[in-house]
This record gives sequence, C-alpha cells and structure tokens, in this order.
Amino acid sequence: MNAIKLWFRSVAQVMFQANAWCGVLLLAGIFLGAYSAGTPEVAWGAVVGTTVAILTGCLLGYPRDEATQGLWGFNGILVGCALMTFLGSTPLGWAALVVCAAMTTWVRVGLNRLGEPLGVSSYTFPFVLSTWIFLAAARMFGGIDIVALAHPMLPTSFVHTHLSHDSLPTLIEFCQWTLRGISQVFLIDSWLTGALFVVGLAIARPAAALWAVVGSAGGAAVALLFGAPTEAIAHGMYGFSPVLTAIALGTLAPIHTPLRKAVWALVGIVGTVFVQASMNELLAPVGLPSLTAPFCIATWLFMLPIANNHKPTKKD
Amino acid sequence: MNAIKLWFRSVAQVMFQANAWCGVLLLAGIFLGAYSAGTPEVAWGAVVGTTVAILTGCLLGYPRDEATQGLWGFNGILVGCALMTFLGSTPLGWAALVVCAAMTTWVRVGLNRLGEPLGVSSYTFPFVLSTWIFLAAARMFGGIDIVALAHPMLPTSFVHTHLSHDSLPTLIEFCQWTLRGISQVFLIDSWLTGALFVVGLAIARPAAALWAVVGSAGGAAVALLFGAPTEAIAHGMYGFSPVLTAIALGTLAPIHTPLRKAVWALVGIVGTVFVQASMNELLAPVGLPSLTAPFCIATWLFMLPIANNHKPTKKD
Amino acid sequence: MNAIKLWFRSVAQVMFQANAWCGVLLLAGIFLGAYSAGTPEVAWGAVVGTTVAILTGCLLGYPRDEATQGLWGFNGILVGCALMTFLGSTPLGWAALVVCAAMTTWVRVGLNRLGEPLGVSSYTFPFVLSTWIFLAAARMFGGIDIVALAHPMLPTSFVHTHLSHDSLPTLIEFCQWTLRGISQVFLIDSWLTGALFVVGLAIARPAAALWAVVGSAGGAAVALLFGAPTEAIAHGMYGFSPVLTAIALGTLAPIHTPLRKAVWALVGIVGTVFVQASMNELLAPVGLPSLTAPFCIATWLFMLPIANNHKPTKKD
Repeated sequence: MNAIKLWFRSVAQVMFQANAWCGVLLLAGIFLGAYSAGTPEVAWGAVVGTTVAILTGCLLGYPRDEATQGLWGFNGILVGCALMTFLGSTPLGWAALVVCAAMTTWVRVGLNRLGEPLGVSSYTFPFVLSTWIFLAAARMFGGIDIVALAHPMLPTSFVHTHLSHDSLPTLIEFCQWTLRGISQVFLIDSWLTGALFVVGLAIARPAAALWAVVGSAGGAAVALLFGAPTEAIAHGMYGFSPVLTAIALGTLAPIHTPLRKAVWALVGIVGTVFVQASMNELLAPVGLPSLTAPFCIATWLFMLPIANNHKPTKKD
Repeated sequence: MNAIKLWFRSVAQVMFQANAWCGVLLLAGIFLGAYSAGTPEVAWGAVVGTTVAILTGCLLGYPRDEATQGLWGFNGILVGCALMTFLGSTPLGWAALVVCAAMTTWVRVGLNRLGEPLGVSSYTFPFVLSTWIFLAAARMFGGIDIVALAHPMLPTSFVHTHLSHDSLPTLIEFCQWTLRGISQVFLIDSWLTGALFVVGLAIARPAAALWAVVGSAGGAAVALLFGAPTEAIAHGMYGFSPVLTAIALGTLAPIHTPLRKAVWALVGIVGTVFVQASMNELLAPVGLPSLTAPFCIATWLFMLPIANNHKPTKKD
Repeated sequence: MNAIKLWFRSVAQVMFQANAWCGVLLLAGIFLGAYSAGTPEVAWGAVVGTTVAILTGCLLGYPRDEATQGLWGFNGILVGCALMTFLGSTPLGWAALVVCAAMTTWVRVGLNRLGEPLGVSSYTFPFVLSTWIFLAAARMFGGIDIVALAHPMLPTSFVHTHLSHDSLPTLIEFCQWTLRGISQVFLIDSWLTGALFVVGLAIARPAAALWAVVGSAGGAAVALLFGAPTEAIAHGMYGFSPVLTAIALGTLAPIHTPLRKAVWALVGIVGTVFVQASMNELLAPVGLPSLTAPFCIATWLFMLPIANNHKPTKKD
C-alpha cells in the first residue's frame, strides 16, 4: 500500500506535489495521450522509468523520508517518457532507458549536494543531464534507433514577422494551446491530457493548478508577442517549462508577501520563454531537445537571489 | 545628487571604479563613439540599461551600500550597449533590453552567492549570461530584428600565416588599436572613445588607466604574434577582455608583492587572449559574440587559486 | 634524487599512483609508442609539459606535500602529449604548450577549491579545460599549425547496425583493443604501450592494474554492444576514459563493502561509455577531442553522491 502511494507520489513530484491521487491522474493523462498518439511505449516507458528509479534508491539504501515524498522517482518517469519519445522501442533502447533512469536517482543526490548550501534544488536537472547524455550517445551508437530527434543544423533566423490579427488564435484555440503546454511537461501533445493534469494538480493544491494554467498561457502569450513560430506555440513547446517555473516560483518561492510572490512568478514566466528560445538556438547544431532545462535554468536564476542558506524543506 | 553620483558610479564600475567623474567620462566616450558611428541607439541603450538595472535594485529592496558603490547598474549598461548593437531599435527590441537589463540585477546577486565562499565575484558575467539568452532567443523570435549578429557557421581555420614585417602595424596604428581595444569594453569601435576612457580611469585610479593600456596593447601584441586576423585586432577585438583582466588582476588581486602581482597580471593578459580566441571558435556554430566572457573565465582561472575564503570587499 | 622521484610520480599520478617506478614504466611506454608512430615530439612534449608544470608549482610557492605526491605535474604531462598530438611542432606550438602546461598547475588549485567542500577532486579536468582553450584558440590563430584536429562538422548518425557475429573481434584482437584503450590515456595508440602501462600499474598497486584492464575491456564491450564504430573501438577510443573511471571508483571510492565498490565501478564503466559517446557528438560542431572529459564527468556523477564532506586525502 505504501509502495503504491510512494510510486504515484513520484509521478506527482514532477509537478512538485507529494500527492498520490494527483499522480494517478497524471499517469492516466500520460496513458491517454500516449495511446491516442499511437505511441504506447511512451506510457510504458514512464512506468518502467519510475519503477527503475525507485528500485535504485532502495538498492543504494537512500534515506526513506525522501522516498515517501516521491523524490526518488520523478526524474525516472521523465526519462521514460523522453527516451521512448525520441528513441526506438528496441531491446537496446529499453536497456538505455533502464540505465538512464537508474542514474537519475544518484545524480539527483549528487547535484543536490551542490545546491544545498545555496538553498536550491536540482529540480528536474538530473533527468535533463542524464537524458542529454543518452540521446547524444544514441546518435553515435548504431545499435540504438533514433525515431524523433531533430537533425543537427546551424540555427537559422526565422523570417521577420510582426504579430498581426490574422496570426492570433481564437479563444478556444488558445485554451487548447495552454492545455497542450501543460501536457508537454511529460512530452505528451494533447489538450485532453493537459486538462487531466490540471484536475490532478487541483486535487493536490489548487494554487499549483492555477499557476500551471497561468504559466502555460503566459508562456504562449509571450512567445506569440515576440514572434515565435505559431506551430511550436500551438503544440505547447513554449508552455511546458514556464508551467514548472510558475508552480515553483508561485507556490514554493520563499517570499512572504503574496503579491510580490505572484509578480516574481509572472516575471519568471517571461524569463523562461527567453531561456527556452535561446536553448532551442544553442542546441540546434547538436540536434538535442531542450527538455526541461529552460525551467531549471530560469528557476535557478530567479531562486538563487532569494533562497535561504539552509536546507530547503520542499522538494528537497 | 546622490542618485546622480550613484548612477555614474554604476557606469564606472564596469571598469571596477566607484568614481562618478570616471563614469561621466566613460559615458561621454560612449556617446561620442555611438554618434560618430551613426548608432545613437547604442548610447541611449546604455542610459536606459543602467537606469533600469538600478531601479530594479530599488524595487527588490537590495542593500543600499552596494548601490552607492555603483554595483547595481554596471551589468545593465553593458546590456544596453550590446542589445542595441546587435538587435534592431524597435519596440520589441527595447522591451527585450528592459527585461534583460532588469534581470542582471538579481542574476548578479544569485551568481555572487556562488562565488562568495570562494572569494571571487561574478564580474560582468550577469551581463554575459543574460545577453546570451536574449540574443540567442532573438534569432528564434521573428518579432525581434537582428542587425549585427554573425551568421552561425562551422569554425574554419585561418590560412597559415607567419608574422611578417609587412603585416606589422606602425606605432601610430598600434596605439589606435590599443585605444580601440579599450573602447570595445563598451562595444564601441573608436580610438577617441578609448582615449576618453583612459582619461576617465586616470581620474579614478592611475594604476587602472595604466593596466587598461597594458592589457589592450598586450592583448593585441599576443594576438599578432600567434597570427590572429589583423582586421579583428585592429578593431580591438583582442583587446577588450584583456583590458578588464589586467585591471582586475593588476589592481585588485590579493597579492602583496607588487612585482609578483604585475607578473600575474601580465600572464593573465596572455591567458585571456587564448580564452578569447577559443570562445570565438566555440561560439561560431551558434553565431553569438563572446561579449566579456573571456575576461570572466580567465579572471576566475587566475583569481580562484589566490582568492581568500572571506567576503571580498572590492566589487564584491 | 627527490626531484627525480617527484618527477616520475607526477607521471604516475595520471593513473592515480604516487609511485616513481610506475612513472618510469609509463614514460617508457609513451616513448615507445610515440617513436614507433613516428611522432617523437609527443614523447618530448610529455617531458616538457611535466617539467613546466612542476616548475610552475615551485615558482608559485605551492605546498610541498602535494608536490611530493606528484600532484603538480600530472596535468602537465597530458597537455604535452595532447598539444604535440594535435598541433604542429613549431616554435609557437611549443610556446603554447609551455603556457598551457604551466596554467594547469594553478587551474588545478583553483578548481580543487570548488570540489573540496564536496569531497571530490578536479581529476584531470585542469588538463582538459586548458587544452580545450588552446586547441580551440589554435584554430583561430594562423601562427599555430593544426596537424590532427577533426574538421568541425554537424554530427551525423551512424548507419543502423546491429551487433553481428562477423563484426565481433577475435580474442587476440579484443586483447589488443583493450591494451590500446589503456595506452590512449596518454593519447598513444599502441597495445605494447598499453602492456607496459599495465605492468607499471601492477608495480604500484595490483588492483589498479586490474581495474585498468577491466575498464578498457568493459568500455570496448559496451561500445560494441551498442554499435559504436568498430574502428574507433579498435583504436581504444572507448577505452581510455573508462580506464580512469574504473581505477578511480574501483580503488578510491569511499565505499566499505568490496562487492558494492566493485559493482559501483562496473556501473561507472557503463556510464562513462555513454558520456564518451555523447561528448563525441556534442564536440563535433567545434572539432575538438573529448580528451579525458568523459572520465571527469562520469566520475563526478558517481563520486558526488558517495563522497564525504571532508578534505579527501587521496589525489587531493
């Protein structure tokens, strides 16, 4: 019973919630999105990744209190989603997934030692770092199939376009874009999944659900304003990192005045969109996805100046 | 009155001086250079960038003693110069400048927390990091015009050239190159501006003026010796980072023997030239300028082994 | 007498041994390999690099106890091997080598200050960082000849190949690959050199010799399994970093149960192969070699979670 609770809390911790029911709804959203996209391996990758990461924590004998908060497995589930999105579902692909998901458990412990004296966490960066290593390696390894990585290319500027009335989405479309931005946190491109995620978050912490929506909508709006390609915005590519930044800053930042905290989260959303765009540019020559690195980088830049010098209590 | 002093000290802090008259001369140099090059927006960008960065410090309630030393605004002025040099002077370009300049104020506080226990400062890296993010993002955003960024390309080796008598500059030319290297600290390409900068530094601290000249001349000489493209050297591109390294090491390094300190600064100048050339190579595929990153990296490499384990007092 | 001992211990410290006879055999292996490959400058580069790095430590007055352990010079010897492998043996090439080798001595002191509170060392990263700077700079400098750097290119995926019986090496071949992987630690491509290295390690510490062999063989096996190009594996390119990771984790990791320590080292070997492949991909657009960066990165990722919070005593 406790093991099941712990398992689903690991899913929910991607969104900073130690709540098993939230995890159930997130996983339901992942299965819904993966199966409707015809990529069930993404959902099963999530299951395997979470399980492997948790078992690794058991094998290494890490402190149980982190486990009960779901902190062992949340990087593993993201590894599972990402590797089965970008690599082929072959025996060697799954072997890479297992090693990569296991690695996140101890990489998180190592990276948190860097952030601890500064009062910041490694967030999802153990997932980002491990997944970058395995995706980049996959391109050098003939034995691993690549199914969805971008071709390495020199970054090219988009044609100069100003925001016009024609390029603006309808309200319905904009709501779908916003929900897709939330579903993309787990690399799922489905507004229905995004809606399930919002419900799951609302169960755990209504403020988190609110900030997820504000983060995704704000990210899309800023990207629209500065002329990012509409196609990318519509599929939630400018939403998923701001979602996480918004929940982190809006609900966990150590700022005591609610208004100041909200303003800080809003500025953080704007900053994350620029970090997202810059990482798209910087990673083009090596053909890697940014994953949730823009969230991690932006959140560090906004958390470091305000974090306290003691061990943080939330999301370690 | 104090606000004006604080404002001009922020300008001077780019060159490590908490001296308002020095700041006045530096700003005069920027206006002279920008207007004669037909790019007045660079000078006004400097004014806006400084102002925004200082106001951000006020809004965030940061400690006033740093403000009176001019430490809130020096990254902001560099953001202003850089963004108006590389991006178009459009409403969205100015919006990016405002967000970017504001960001440097808290990014500096955050990054200084990393360096504090090691006795080093973030130097101008808050400017470098924020500006890289916004320039890279600008290439992905159709709404922001790019006017002067290099086209992304794979780095190519320069044709093998040995130093010959013909390629050597005359003494007058070499002096102009040296002064241009100093003016390039603020992205201005004008030997007259460089001369004004030297005068400004001499008012604040004669040793700083001396090291600025030695840094720029030394950088140009080392680059010439190792066969860097003459064109780049002539426009001060191998001078601006060594200028800052030379002032930092030559006047602020915690070395007690003057001779050892001078030798350390001279070796630091040589090291900075290699870091500069390497960053030109590394950034070619993403088409970003090195900004003052070579100064930051070289100065960290030369400061870390000698810095003390307590809070530094100069330029935090 | 002590100076000679110290000198050869510096050579041996690349492989984590403070043993002069081990250093003698390593140097013999380097000379054997370099002269049979017709590149004697690599061997003499090693001699000059070690000497310059040690003299730099003397000039800077660093603590003698580190010197007697051979910790001043081990980055310098690698700089000597690397720069004379990739750059031409010209006066300016040797000048670059001298500056670069000297730099490693204080860069190591600086970087160790970062790792000390976390209980990890900078390993060979001072060599990696300094050499990357000088190799990247060499491409921008017409005065320095490049003889062996890869051409910058966008990374391309290898054709999909599954492991087949035909592509498997014979046992003799696999032993040669393994020994070449060990010789490649010093950028030498010779199984005979690798054999000398194993003997040298066995003199100093039999367990280190064993782990070197296991690391190189394991690296080659994992690379074969995941379909890395056979040519690269045969020349030891997937062996040299796992060799160092295996010695570091297998003999120096602060794990008390021998079996757990051995398993940790084996998993570390697998992880290093993926880091190696990923760095080959990431460095392709700038045409730089990975050097021993994969060893450093993998070892940090495996050491940080288990390292103690006090000053480490081995290989500082």
